[in-house]
Amino acid sequence: MSDFEEPIQRLIEYFRALPGVGQKTAQRYAFYIIENSKDKAENFAKAIVDAKQKVRLCRECGNYSAGDLCKICERRNPKIVCVVQEPKDIVAMEKVKTFEGVYHVLFGCINPLENKGPNDIRIKELLSRVQKNGVQEVIMATNPDVEGEATAMYIAKLLKPMGVKVTRLAQGISIGSDIEFADEVTLEKALKSRQEI
Amino acid sequence: MSDFEEPIQRLIEYFRALPGVGQKTAQRYAFYIIENSKDKAENFAKAIVDAKQKVRLCRECGNYSAGDLCKICERRNPKIVCVVQEPKDIVAMEKVKTFEGVYHVLFGCINPLENKGPNDIRIKELLSRVQKNGVQEVIMATNPDVEGEATAMYIAKLLKPMGVKVTRLAQGISIGSDIEFADEVTLEKALKSRQEI
Repeated sequence: MSDFEEPIQRLIEYFRALPGVGQKTAQRYAFYIIENSKDKAENFAKAIVDAKQKVRLCRECGNYSAGDLCKICERRNPKIVCVVQEPKDIVAMEKVKTFEGVYHVLFGCINPLENKGPNDIRIKELLSRVQKNGVQEVIMATNPDVEGEATAMYIAKLLKPMGVKVTRLAQGISIGSDIEFADEVTLEKALKSRQEI
Repeated sequence: MSDFEEPIQRLIEYFRALPGVGQKTAQRYAFYIIENSKDKAENFAKAIVDAKQKVRLCRECGNYSAGDLCKICERRNPKIVCVVQEPKDIVAMEKVKTFEGVYHVLFGCINPLENKGPNDIRIKELLSRVQKNGVQEVIMATNPDVEGEATAMYIAKLLKPMGVKVTRLAQGISIGSDIEFADEVTLEKALKSRQEI
């Protein structure tokens, strides 16, 4: 049926709104719900409402958290702060099991085209955190594009007078990639930052 | 975080249970929920519960329906019945805009390996429907595999004594495909069923 019965159609539309989901995938998801138990559907629905209701921003780092303070801020070294643009960047960074510091989520970056200035992202919170906790190093892990670079530079300028070490994730060729297919900007960066072996 | 905060983790697990969804996709879906409004999350949850609660099987064809009778059975010619294995097959068939008949969902096929016999699928319902409605033609649209074929043959044998025309979807090479890559069984079928041009 190109037009489904109403409750199915509505569910398909909600699934379609998920990132990267097209009509056919949304249909499969909806049929999965209908073909499974009532319990499962109700628990799924509850999980959605719960996640939205119970998850708030960690009062320190701004990451999504079930409590006032997130698990990372609770347990790890607050003297080393890694600054990221979005909570999902933390997911990626945490794959590096050796990092023992905490994070700071900016929720975006300085982007004049989107009318986002320094006051629209969580820079003030970062500065007061650095002062309050005696932070030793701030690692800038904003995206390696124009806006991310500019944001990193802007924040570095504010932090340096406070006597904090500010670093930036190294840029270069990706592990396992082919030099043949690397773009020129990446290669230039990699050449500039070359290290003795 | 390889281990997410509890409400996020639970939501990710529910999304992961959807067909074809891996860890990363489930994370993206969960973040989407958290990043959007509370209203949207609640409506999404409601749509899931509603779909499961309100959708039942059409009393005639067995397709998912919001009412006692599905939209297709309500409006279309009940003298031509297309027999399919699953409700999702109807979605595919309905892309053919010219079909004016109704459907009959078997919910599976005869499959000895899965311990599914003729009494485990909706064959009885089909027979009584054929009798009751004076059906003129039954089109077998079960899958073109061993079990689907066997089911179609079995049902055809039951229907023919009732004086109904029983047909099967044509089998052959797909439109737009390459003969070079067609498998031998398909080619053999296509050769056997060749038509004068």
